[in-house]
Amino acid sequence: MCLLVVCLGSPYLVGHKCIPPVPGLDNGPNIVTAKTLNDHLNWRYATKKMDASKTVPQDKVNAIIEAVRLAPTSSGTQPFELIVVTNPEIRAQISEAAMGQAQITDGSHLLVFAAWDTYTEDRIDAVTQLNVAARGDLPLIHGYYDNLKANYLPREAEVNYAHAARQAYIALGIALVAAAEQEVDSTPMEGFSSDAVDSILGLRERGLRSVVLMPLGYREEAGDWLLPMPKVRKSRESMVTEVA
Amino acid sequence: MCLLVVCLGSPYLVGHKCIPPVPGLDNGPNIVTAKTLNDHLNWRYATKKMDASKTVPQDKVNAIIEAVRLAPTSSGTQPFELIVVTNPEIRAQISEAAMGQAQITDGSHLLVFAAWDTYTEDRIDAVTQLNVAARGDLPLIHGYYDNLKANYLPREAEVNYAHAARQAYIALGIALVAAAEQEVDSTPMEGFSSDAVDSILGLRERGLRSVVLMPLGYREEAGDWLLPMPKVRKSRESMVTEVA
Repeated sequence: MCLLVVCLGSPYLVGHKCIPPVPGLDNGPNIVTAKTLNDHLNWRYATKKMDASKTVPQDKVNAIIEAVRLAPTSSGTQPFELIVVTNPEIRAQISEAAMGQAQITDGSHLLVFAAWDTYTEDRIDAVTQLNVAARGDLPLIHGYYDNLKANYLPREAEVNYAHAARQAYIALGIALVAAAEQEVDSTPMEGFSSDAVDSILGLRERGLRSVVLMPLGYREEAGDWLLPMPKVRKSRESMVTEVA
Repeated sequence: MCLLVVCLGSPYLVGHKCIPPVPGLDNGPNIVTAKTLNDHLNWRYATKKMDASKTVPQDKVNAIIEAVRLAPTSSGTQPFELIVVTNPEIRAQISEAAMGQAQITDGSHLLVFAAWDTYTEDRIDAVTQLNVAARGDLPLIHGYYDNLKANYLPREAEVNYAHAARQAYIALGIALVAAAEQEVDSTPMEGFSSDAVDSILGLRERGLRSVVLMPLGYREEAGDWLLPMPKVRKSRESMVTEVA
C-alpha cells in the first residue's frame, strides 16, 4: 500500500475527516494510510455496550442514511423503508421488545429496516414512474415493470415479503460499512419481536414489517466485553471454492 | 471534503492503488480526492454488458473475496459459502440457467453465493469450535451456541435456509461495494434457476443452495445501454421516516 491521506489547511485527520486545530495537541503533519473497505470491516464489531453520554452527529447519520438510499436492490424497487428513531421513550419500548438489549437506548439513533409486506401494483407503478422521470418514457421501462408485476403480483404476500426482506439485508450490509467509515459503532440485531416493533412504530398499517435493527452510537470501551476479543471468521479455504 | 490521496514513490493513482510510471504518460503529481463509500455506490451500476476481452486481476478478486469473508452474519455463523467460477464451460452452463445473461460469460469471474440448506448440529459446533479457538474455552461461548442450537435445530429446514440466505445478502451488499472500490464492474443477479445452478455446481450434495449470482468483469462502454442512464433512487423523504 502506498496510499496516503493528507489534510490540507487543517491539521488533524480523524477517520476520513480533517478537523480544525485542537489546542494542546501537537499540530504536526497528518499523513496516514487511507482506510480500505476491508480496514472498515476489520474495525467494526457488533458493539455490546454503547456510551449513553455520546450522540452521533447528524452529518454522520446522514452519510449512513445516504448509503442505505443508494444501496442496490432487485429491479431497483427499494422495497423497504428506513425508520430512524431518536425518541428515547420509543427506543425504550423497542428495547423491551428486543430482550432488553441496551444498545438501543444507550446509542443515540436506532435504524429500523422495514420491508414491504408484499409487492403491489401501486408500489411497482411508483417505481416505474420514478424510472420514467429519470430516464424518459421508454417502452423498455414499461415492459420491464409490466413483466415484474406479472411475476410478483400473483405470488403469496409471504413470498414477496421474503424477497423484499432480502433486499433490506443488502442495505444492512452497506449501512454497517457506512457506519464504520464514519467511525460510528453499530450492532446489527435480529433478536427482537417484529410484531411488537411493528406495533410500536405503526408499521403494519403502512404495509411494512420490521426486519432488522441497527442501533448507532459509540462504544463504551470499559464496559464492552466483546471489544477486547479477536474477531472470529472462517478461513478462506473453509468457505470459498474455486471452480477453474 | 479536504481529503487528498497522494502517491509517494510511484506516480500514478488508479482507483485506490498507486501504480508504477507508464511510458508515454505524463508523470506529474497525482493528487486526487479520496473516494468515500457513497462515491463507490454512485460509481457502481448493474453492468449489462461486460468486455469479454478483459480479466479482473487476482489481487482485486482476492480483495472482494476477503470482504465477503469479513462480512458480519447472525451469531457469526457465516451460513453460506462462496463459489468462484472462472471455468468458461461451467459459466456457459450457468448463463443458460440464467436466461442467457451474458455478463456471466463475458465477465472473467462469477461469484455464486450459496446458503446453507439448514442449520445443523455439526455446522453450529464447528462455529463454536472456531470461537473457542480464537477466544478461549469460555462458558459464555458454549452457552450462546447451545442456546442457538436449541432455537435453530427444531425449525423447518426452509426457515433456516431463509435465515441463512438473508445473511448471504449482507455479504452480497458488501461484495458490491468491494468490487466498486476495486473499480471492478459487477451485476447482482437473482434471475436464474437455483435448481439448475445447484445441479451444475453440485451444491445440494454439499448442503448448499444457490441464492444470488455476481459476475465480475469490466463494462463494455459502447455496448452497455444502462451505462449512460442516470441512477434511479427514491428520495430520502420517500423512504426514510424520523421518529424524534
